[in-house]
Amino acid sequence: MLTLYDYMDSGNGYKVRLVLAKLGLPYKLVLCDILKGETRTPEFLAKNPNGRIPTLQLEDGAFLAESGAIIWYLAEGTPLAPKDRKARAETLQQDSHEPNIAVARFWKHYLPKLSALQEMDLPNRMKGGYAALDIMEKHLAKNDFFVGGSFGLADIALYAYTHVAHEGEFDLSKYPSINAWMGRVAAQPNHVTISHKN
Amino acid sequence: MLTLYDYMDSGNGYKVRLVLAKLGLPYKLVLCDILKGETRTPEFLAKNPNGRIPTLQLEDGAFLAESGAIIWYLAEGTPLAPKDRKARAETLQQDSHEPNIAVARFWKHYLPKLSALQEMDLPNRMKGGYAALDIMEKHLAKNDFFVGGSFGLADIALYAYTHVAHEGEFDLSKYPSINAWMGRVAAQPNHVTISHKN
Repeated sequence: MLTLYDYMDSGNGYKVRLVLAKLGLPYKLVLCDILKGETRTPEFLAKNPNGRIPTLQLEDGAFLAESGAIIWYLAEGTPLAPKDRKARAETLQQDSHEPNIAVARFWKHYLPKLSALQEMDLPNRMKGGYAALDIMEKHLAKNDFFVGGSFGLADIALYAYTHVAHEGEFDLSKYPSINAWMGRVAAQPNHVTISHKN
Repeated sequence: MLTLYDYMDSGNGYKVRLVLAKLGLPYKLVLCDILKGETRTPEFLAKNPNGRIPTLQLEDGAFLAESGAIIWYLAEGTPLAPKDRKARAETLQQDSHEPNIAVARFWKHYLPKLSALQEMDLPNRMKGGYAALDIMEKHLAKNDFFVGGSFGLADIALYAYTHVAHEGEFDLSKYPSINAWMGRVAAQPNHVTISHKN
């Protein structure tokens, strides 16, 4: 069986859990407390030298890291992964939209106190996050989903942090098309929430 | 014909130029001076709302952004892109190794003066860059190339910034396996340098 090393609040972990749920794949969930350094132990680093979740152990014992790589691995050959060459590239390019939202959320929602560097960098992260939201809004004003007119990996990858952007104190009220899209994503079959354990 | 909007010194642009050279694909090169804001004009933002190079215009007029997406688009179905599902995922996961090296290089080599934030963040970037190099060194001590034992997209993606890491003042002398691998990459057929114009 697949084993997923993960942290429930992680948007990147949620991307993988959402794909696993969509595909109905059974897996063992091993929770690692990233705030307590549980992904920096020698034991974990032997699984993933980058010391990050999500990390997926395959049935042959090998480990895969990076949510973008993992979700493609799982979804390849299913309706979640487009077959058309251009649609595949468009799906891959979505993955870079959200680092600013993810980082701002982590700092604001999970850290007891920001470092001086984080305090100084936060305005850039907020600005970058809003720039990404602006681009998403423009696309979703004309399209129901991100790639090829139907729900797929690109939507999962972008939904993961967008739907918790308010935890980074992003104001989503001025993004009607993003809100409507989030509703459509959550209404897809086999949806699970970020806190849902398998 | 394909049109590549690019900036010669960009490692991300170089990934695309290297794939185009390997595949012998003709293309028109349009240089944009990122330091002068030429990717932030309304005209450029209409091509890529993120305002970044490399941006590739396809023969049907559509634009593709993000080097990772572009090189997969170009290489799909060629020997540069692995066919095996696990090897494909392993190739995708390499892409996250180098942001620290790329950022440190840009700050140190291209900016006339660092901002206070950059000064404060630089040690983290150097530390993260060396951590990535350590992981690469370990892998290359046992493997000639990154994925599946043969040269491919993962090597191109990682070579682009590693071979100019000294411009970010990274000391590569203590990485014998990385140096040997860089030699093997540069010895592959149809290699071009980062400054080579098509």
